Amino acid sequence: MKIIRYRYQGSEPVWGVLREENVYHLTEGLFGDRILAEEPVPLGQVERLAPIRPRKLIAVGRNYAAHAAEKGNEVPKEPMIFLVSPTAVIGSDEVIRLPNTMDRIEFEGELAVVIGKEGKGIARENALDHVLGYTAANDISNRDLQKKDGQFTRAKSFDTFKPLGPVIETDLDPSDLRLVVRINEEIRQDGRTSDMVHAIQDQIAFISSIFPLEQGDVILTGTPAGVGPLQPGDRVEITIEGIGTLRNRVEE
Amino acid sequence: MKIIRYRYQGSEPVWGVLREENVYHLTEGLFGDRILAEEPVPLGQVERLAPIRPRKLIAVGRNYAAHAAEKGNEVPKEPMIFLVSPTAVIGSDEVIRLPNTMDRIEFEGELAVVIGKEGKGIARENALDHVLGYTAANDISNRDLQKKDGQFTRAKSFDTFKPLGPVIETDLDPSDLRLVVRINEEIRQDGRTSDMVHAIQDQIAFISSIFPLEQGDVILTGTPAGVGPLQPGDRVEITIEGIGTLRNRVEE
Repeated sequence: MKIIRYRYQGSEPVWGVLREENVYHLTEGLFGDRILAEEPVPLGQVERLAPIRPRKLIAVGRNYAAHAAEKGNEVPKEPMIFLVSPTAVIGSDEVIRLPNTMDRIEFEGELAVVIGKEGKGIARENALDHVLGYTAANDISNRDLQKKDGQFTRAKSFDTFKPLGPVIETDLDPSDLRLVVRINEEIRQDGRTSDMVHAIQDQIAFISSIFPLEQGDVILTGTPAGVGPLQPGDRVEITIEGIGTLRNRVEE
Repeated sequence: MKIIRYRYQGSEPVWGVLREENVYHLTEGLFGDRILAEEPVPLGQVERLAPIRPRKLIAVGRNYAAHAAEKGNEVPKEPMIFLVSPTAVIGSDEVIRLPNTMDRIEFEGELAVVIGKEGKGIARENALDHVLGYTAANDISNRDLQKKDGQFTRAKSFDTFKPLGPVIETDLDPSDLRLVVRINEEIRQDGRTSDMVHAIQDQIAFISSIFPLEQGDVILTGTPAGVGPLQPGDRVEITIEGIGTLRNRVEE
């Protein structure tokens, strides 16, 4: 099912299941039993939000060989992880704001994993049992600050730098999905998740060997080749097979 | 006032004010009005916990010149920040567990800042208005993984690697406090917060220029010179003037 997060008539953010143009409220929340309200609300009457505000927002770097190569980096033998601020998340159709700077700021289309079940030391074989679903992400990065700091946190944590959406798809095999990024309708990234160096099961096993994965954690699983700069006025579309298209406009 | 977090008779974790050997429950919580229960509970009857489970756990690296020098690093002109996993936090008197490894794992005594009031783009002059209080921290770091990864998140995010405590002191001028780390009663670090390269006001202004600081965020403000390895059996004591002593034993 496709889950969205939204406000309805000024409510607190809630989750619901999208069926055609109708939204069925998940009365027990995102992590509860999947009980749907009997009466749907028309999609046009809700205010859509990012599908989740992550608890921890964990990123895996250099996870597609061709992308590592285009940046002159080697592929790490173990996943290279770091954390970014969950406050950077926005939803589809929200505006990406470039801080007032001359720095090079790039898009990175990625598959994002939403954790549904807590675990520490999760075995590879059970890893996908801990996944609630998948969404699309843009891991926007200020390359100048990334290089200057060495640590990636600042370069990737500015407000609006982590678009997520449009939906969390719960029924999906993530192992070989096409991921396409278009800037102003021109294809710039066109990869498949089967090209990941460390598959999603391995990422979950690795990360949870360090610290617990918790409900609401989100993992950004790395980007294929083709990343490039964003400019004010750009329209970014990240389409992942089975999920849909995350759309954002860029402004200064 | 000195605030502790605890369970009483199997309750959920709550906060209270410590006065001598009595604990007065903060009925409105840590961030609410400071209303104290009329009847205290004897300190001996509560189960003490880490004073906070941080929302974001933000670390500032290389913030004392003598520590940067002992590791062969330059002092960065701007604060160098990164995020670590809040799941690594334990309280005073809890056990630090070293993962089963031959790696070099080091202690780092630090002053920790607890954010009480949300803010983005906070001015230096108002920065301390956003602080709820201060506590002591140990920013335990696996040096081998820190070097290998480049990114510091993994090396510093293992379970039990972020002792915090024993109390949050709300009435304290943080600008010139003595910070002493003892390993098995021998002094190993002996610094003053006045030796920070970037003062707390500057750290808050800098971090909040990137992303919002939120209630319950914790900033680890860097460590003075004298860091060194931990071994199973070690007793670590981090004493900060006006706060008290964070005590942890190390086990395998």
